[in-house]
Amino acid sequence: MPVISKKGQSMPQSPIRKLVPYAEQAYKEGKTVYHLNIGQPDIKTPQVALDAVKVHSLDILAYTRSEGSEGYRKKIADYYAKNDIHVKHDDIIVTTGGSEALLFAFGSIMDVDDEVIIPEPFYANYNGFSTASGVKVVPVISKIEDNFALPAIEEFEKLITPKTKAILICNPGNPTGYLYSKEEIKKLADIVKKHDLFLIADEVYREFAYDGAKHYSILQEEGLEDYAIVIDSVSKRYSMCGARIGCLVSKSKDVIATALKFAQARLSPPTLAQIASEAALQTPQSYFDEVNKEYVERRNVLIEELSKIEGVKVAKPKGAFYCIAELPVKNADKFAQWLLESFDVDKETIMVAPAAGFYSTPNVGLNQIRIAYVLNKESLVKAVNILKEALKVYKD
Amino acid sequence: MPVISKKGQSMPQSPIRKLVPYAEQAYKEGKTVYHLNIGQPDIKTPQVALDAVKVHSLDILAYTRSEGSEGYRKKIADYYAKNDIHVKHDDIIVTTGGSEALLFAFGSIMDVDDEVIIPEPFYANYNGFSTASGVKVVPVISKIEDNFALPAIEEFEKLITPKTKAILICNPGNPTGYLYSKEEIKKLADIVKKHDLFLIADEVYREFAYDGAKHYSILQEEGLEDYAIVIDSVSKRYSMCGARIGCLVSKSKDVIATALKFAQARLSPPTLAQIASEAALQTPQSYFDEVNKEYVERRNVLIEELSKIEGVKVAKPKGAFYCIAELPVKNADKFAQWLLESFDVDKETIMVAPAAGFYSTPNVGLNQIRIAYVLNKESLVKAVNILKEALKVYKD
Ligand SMILES: Cc1ncc(COP(=O)(O)O)c(C=O)c1O
Ligand SMILES: Cc1ncc(COP(=O)(O)O)c(C=O)c1O
Repeated sequence: MPVISKKGQSMPQSPIRKLVPYAEQAYKEGKTVYHLNIGQPDIKTPQVALDAVKVHSLDILAYTRSEGSEGYRKKIADYYAKNDIHVKHDDIIVTTGGSEALLFAFGSIMDVDDEVIIPEPFYANYNGFSTASGVKVVPVISKIEDNFALPAIEEFEKLITPKTKAILICNPGNPTGYLYSKEEIKKLADIVKKHDLFLIADEVYREFAYDGAKHYSILQEEGLEDYAIVIDSVSKRYSMCGARIGCLVSKSKDVIATALKFAQARLSPPTLAQIASEAALQTPQSYFDEVNKEYVERRNVLIEELSKIEGVKVAKPKGAFYCIAELPVKNADKFAQWLLESFDVDKETIMVAPAAGFYSTPNVGLNQIRIAYVLNKESLVKAVNILKEALKVYKD
Repeated sequence: MPVISKKGQSMPQSPIRKLVPYAEQAYKEGKTVYHLNIGQPDIKTPQVALDAVKVHSLDILAYTRSEGSEGYRKKIADYYAKNDIHVKHDDIIVTTGGSEALLFAFGSIMDVDDEVIIPEPFYANYNGFSTASGVKVVPVISKIEDNFALPAIEEFEKLITPKTKAILICNPGNPTGYLYSKEEIKKLADIVKKHDLFLIADEVYREFAYDGAKHYSILQEEGLEDYAIVIDSVSKRYSMCGARIGCLVSKSKDVIATALKFAQARLSPPTLAQIASEAALQTPQSYFDEVNKEYVERRNVLIEELSKIEGVKVAKPKGAFYCIAELPVKNADKFAQWLLESFDVDKETIMVAPAAGFYSTPNVGLNQIRIAYVLNKESLVKAVNILKEALKVYKD
């Protein structure tokens, strides 16, 4: 019998997958489960995007260009210009979600056994893309005490080896909710220039910056033209995760030419979803204002309620729609399972993401969970109450 | 300045890409170009599929399950059952085109430097997926004189090393148009069982089998449960290449569990396209009958016209919509460029795919081209006439 690859064996599973059977069991027992564990927003997709595919006039659903249709890329460039990011459509490759943009970036700049430094906790699927690409993630710890700010530059420098090819940040951060300041981006710019590294910024949550803070993109930083690679996506911006449209943006001609070869091998990004995504660019500002207002309110409610629970520590997120909470438990993995298996308040319980899966260093973050505030405020209040009651009785 | 990866540098370009600027120049000069070079059919997508997205009632375009929606996978299983292929929905992972299914298959069963044996000429993007996955393609030559039938099993056995993990066939073949017989599949079954290899069959052209021949899938072969991996796609079947929906099918639980981890890392296949693809399964048999009739007529016209040209040798395709023709030229690459740059008949010329790009062995197929019969008959006749006139005057 043939055997699967070592790579396949070591492909990580999502930190939440293990909990799915317990959630399903909970449903079967008639429990309501509040999902604090997912990144699928409950926000409506802009109507203009949904409508665009309803009136399509295609009679052949054909491939588009591998780099995405030119019309769409030109409009993406306009969107960036409005955000003070100045790129040309030739600097953009449309991808099948930010996910594929990450894969193309990894493949374009790293060989097997090369290393990428990533502040942890980080988006768990970076592990999957690294394993698939045969590259090694080198984590640099950021701390809940510091609100998950950028670790000191010395900490990065300690980790740089001849194999280091890139630093990858997520801004604003999943799972931290941290928004990097202009000063932090400048520090990163210095270090990548000094050591000839690429700087990849996953900016899929760009629009979700709160409290008047302004997102500063690595593409706005002068002198980074040959270094900066941005990962972007329509998934969260327009709550259209199922479109599977993202892009890779770089002013480096080499990076674009190389990523294009990966894009050509897979022929084309999805055509219908490009139609929807192009239309989504017409979404009025009021949509984003409302969505951000909603998220800020949710965050405020969430943080306020969490702070009331004894022994719970929480970093106040400035962006995205996640936060990390430290709990008075030893092992959040077991606690999360127990919540689904053995606990309820009036037949209601919660599903959370144990944060250990967002760390690459073993045995870090064991007492932390990630909470996604993709539920309405009433549900959030109920969910946090369940957490509070659970912590009163839980023993580990 | 940071540099791109060796992998990125060695990512191959499509054999046609080099010609694109010459085609663009030809347009500028006001020439009509008959495209015999592409795999994008001119056939209409079934109306039922196009309509399904027009009446969608989504208000959030959300992720589906990573393995594809359960409803759709169940219907795919029904489709296979109608084709005498008996699989369960759990044996199916919905992918972003057959392209992604190939990537998942390679990642699941091969590590860096592992080898996959592929009869050549083969679909050029197998090179891209191999490079991206860090694996090595080992070609086994199939010959135009044999109509590109399966090479002798001894030829495969000569190439098997401890690094060999799989044999990959394309059935029916792009670019050969060859349809493997049941006997040939049985021979392959024997060899993979004997040497503990996986057998990957790219069956994206399953529906395109002509002259009463019946496609025999590796999934129909008993005893191959642990070995067989099928790559499939809606792209050609329903002329919906832009949907980007395919699937990976295997009865091996290990393969499915492993491929699923790759699927989970990239979250979800495209949602709108799954809606269209699910609807496409209702396409009436008459659609396929008409399409096949059209392709058979085109093929007959094409082969007939080509046979009339002195010095041209052509294998008669039994499936798909490609054929390889051997020309009385030394270098088809240069000839193809010359056709676009310097030749026309009444301001009309042709674009063909030089076949060398479909071979992995250097200096093989230099005098061959691939012709895709994705044009209507009148255009095909005109295009072959242009070829004939061109060969009269071309000197290399
Ligand atoms: C930080 C981050 N990057 C990338 C992605 C990938 O998203 P997509 O492939 O849907 O664009 C996600 C999705 O949750 C994410 O949270
Ligand atoms: C043999 C073969 N396999 C796979 C593919 C990939 O097609 P898709 O990704 O559109 O399903 C193609 C496309 O031309 C092909 O010819």
